[in-house]
Amino acid sequence: MKKILLATTMLAGFAGAASAEMALSGSAVMGVGGNGNDTYSLMETYVTFTGTGTTDGGLEFGLSSTIGTYETNDDFYNDGTTVYISGAFGKLSMGSVGEADDVAGLPDIGGIGGLGVDNIAEVDNGDSLGWAHNVNYTYTAGAFTASASANIDTDGVYAVGGKYTFGDYYVGLGFGADDNDYEHTTSLYAGGTMGAVSVKAMYSSYNYYGMGDYTSNAYGLYGAYTTGALTISAEVAANDYTSDASFGLGAAYDLGGGATVTGGIASINGGDLKWEAGVSMSF
Amino acid sequence: MKKILLATTMLAGFAGAASAEMALSGSAVMGVGGNGNDTYSLMETYVTFTGTGTTDGGLEFGLSSTIGTYETNDDFYNDGTTVYISGAFGKLSMGSVGEADDVAGLPDIGGIGGLGVDNIAEVDNGDSLGWAHNVNYTYTAGAFTASASANIDTDGVYAVGGKYTFGDYYVGLGFGADDNDYEHTTSLYAGGTMGAVSVKAMYSSYNYYGMGDYTSNAYGLYGAYTTGALTISAEVAANDYTSDASFGLGAAYDLGGGATVTGGIASINGGDLKWEAGVSMSF
Amino acid sequence: MKKILLATTMLAGFAGAASAEMALSGSAVMGVGGNGNDTYSLMETYVTFTGTGTTDGGLEFGLSSTIGTYETNDDFYNDGTTVYISGAFGKLSMGSVGEADDVAGLPDIGGIGGLGVDNIAEVDNGDSLGWAHNVNYTYTAGAFTASASANIDTDGVYAVGGKYTFGDYYVGLGFGADDNDYEHTTSLYAGGTMGAVSVKAMYSSYNYYGMGDYTSNAYGLYGAYTTGALTISAEVAANDYTSDASFGLGAAYDLGGGATVTGGIASINGGDLKWEAGVSMSF
Repeated sequence: MKKILLATTMLAGFAGAASAEMALSGSAVMGVGGNGNDTYSLMETYVTFTGTGTTDGGLEFGLSSTIGTYETNDDFYNDGTTVYISGAFGKLSMGSVGEADDVAGLPDIGGIGGLGVDNIAEVDNGDSLGWAHNVNYTYTAGAFTASASANIDTDGVYAVGGKYTFGDYYVGLGFGADDNDYEHTTSLYAGGTMGAVSVKAMYSSYNYYGMGDYTSNAYGLYGAYTTGALTISAEVAANDYTSDASFGLGAAYDLGGGATVTGGIASINGGDLKWEAGVSMSF
Repeated sequence: MKKILLATTMLAGFAGAASAEMALSGSAVMGVGGNGNDTYSLMETYVTFTGTGTTDGGLEFGLSSTIGTYETNDDFYNDGTTVYISGAFGKLSMGSVGEADDVAGLPDIGGIGGLGVDNIAEVDNGDSLGWAHNVNYTYTAGAFTASASANIDTDGVYAVGGKYTFGDYYVGLGFGADDNDYEHTTSLYAGGTMGAVSVKAMYSSYNYYGMGDYTSNAYGLYGAYTTGALTISAEVAANDYTSDASFGLGAAYDLGGGATVTGGIASINGGDLKWEAGVSMSF
Repeated sequence: MKKILLATTMLAGFAGAASAEMALSGSAVMGVGGNGNDTYSLMETYVTFTGTGTTDGGLEFGLSSTIGTYETNDDFYNDGTTVYISGAFGKLSMGSVGEADDVAGLPDIGGIGGLGVDNIAEVDNGDSLGWAHNVNYTYTAGAFTASASANIDTDGVYAVGGKYTFGDYYVGLGFGADDNDYEHTTSLYAGGTMGAVSVKAMYSSYNYYGMGDYTSNAYGLYGAYTTGALTISAEVAANDYTSDASFGLGAAYDLGGGATVTGGIASINGGDLKWEAGVSMSF
């Protein structure tokens, strides 16, 4: 839940011209996890600073910075910072931006640290492919959204993506290229909501063009069923790098007020059964 | 003084269901200290992010993260992060939690960086004993509070404690054990307030069970007298690791509005006289 | 634009005694720069925590900490923290304070990362001379402001400065000394505003007293012209360490609401032409 700090001008009667604002929000998870015979504690906490403003001409601009504050070695984790400006021309973002071919990535199972089922399907697209991108341009026209992103400081690192939404359903297509064009990934996405059930699916095909060139495919399917405060989720994912598919089952119960009891079990790449359970909170 | 950021729902008339909130607070000290013939500047600053929420069923949850922002090497200090959920069952915390045998530790002398008289008495209990704890469970029934804490990821690291309050007085008992049970500390606490005078005392006995096993005792006594805005404090502490007792004398004058002029002098383990003086602030 | 977080006491009707407050503000720049044939992306983001309070006797106190949140290596940059207390006696600050001989330093050209024309003129005064200072005392009497600063923990590191303001004009004089007195810098400053035009000038003379002692001079002149939302700026600076003077031209267009389109070109020490352009934002 995001808080808006009142600007001094607002205190004086909400009068005057447009003014920029800073807001503070946060989230936390606490719980326990296991991997085979090992068990371990889980805790993550994040504080987010959000700046938003509007120019006299109606352009919107802002920044968002998130600090991971749970590091135990007296340190912090920079969980991502972006700056943007948007208007009729679309939205231009810089920093730790979304990569344009990650049109509709899958949720993970577990809800605490995450068990990583989604990573199996996303092994070659979006953030997983090569260099991080630092600029993203997104344009929305009705039901169609198109994006392009790149590492503006590294030649040949870019991605494009498009998403079409019809009613409660969507389809999407993404293409990403790594440095020197020796790696490409094409991704397909589809999903939708039918009453209490929602489904998200993706498929990607990665091509390596260097010596010993090869192709590797990955896919994932996520489904969730919600009844009252309870949501049950299931996910299956596989890629050509391992012989075993990965599976996960999760459950989350919304306690209201920003807190959720959540957990799950998963088998990743045929390894030991992993599990986690706990509470997630948003402020 | 802690500030509450207004939730957007509150702006709309304080209507609607329970919602989580983030608050921002801070503190600072500035001054000068000395140790024998050396003098040095003192400055510490902290910013704290506090998230609080209530579930529909009345459970409370939250996070607290504090950043030490005064590091001069372009860095920050993570001064502690905890997450909790509490209700009729008690309060369960994770992160940099209090250790359960530290039932009623002593204040320090000085008020700026702290001269460390309390550390002499607390040499073997609470944080000072072995591994840091990362989970704490506390249950309060009327005048009695019981706590248990542990390092959930390290076998044999735990502590328990109990505190009983009667009128303006309290007594407490703590027990802490380190990894593999080769170290134990038992601590006793007592204190109270009689008009303008408050007193806090503690005694601990540490046992090492390895080769060349031994026992070491430590104690401390803190007293303070308040008249108007002025508080005078005195502390004495000793342990079996050094031959000399440690002493300290302090004074603090509350300027109002969150600022206090404070300082003290101390002799630690028979070493050179240490002193510090300055201003502490809370926001 | 700085936000004030409401204290809980204020929510209860703005009643009660003076109380300290924390505020959150921020800024960001995004854009592109170049140096000869190279081009690169530019982004910086900052979040600032400001604590302010007033004692019952009318002294003011506070802290300010700024985090640079744009580091991409999962890290943050401590962009400066100060603590102060002020009253009729003046203002005493500790931390990353201003150095007293930097009476009226020059603005830079560009407005995104800054092209560094001002650094040529400021090569030997203020922050650029030797050790960082950590205490500053400033006293203002009418149109005259006097400051002294030092590194309280290092002998012989100090600076003094004075500034006199008359109408829309000012003149200033600064003197800084480095460790062991082997380096001195004397600085002169003047500037003012005449309608749409503002001018700032500085000159410094540095003396090295060690083996092979020498003197080096530096100067800079900055001018800006504002018409409506547009400000055009020009700067020239030179020092005796290089044979070529440095030049810069800049332009900024205020979009309102805290956002400005800004950019510039510069030649530094006779090197390749540098440029930058983008948007700066304040929240």
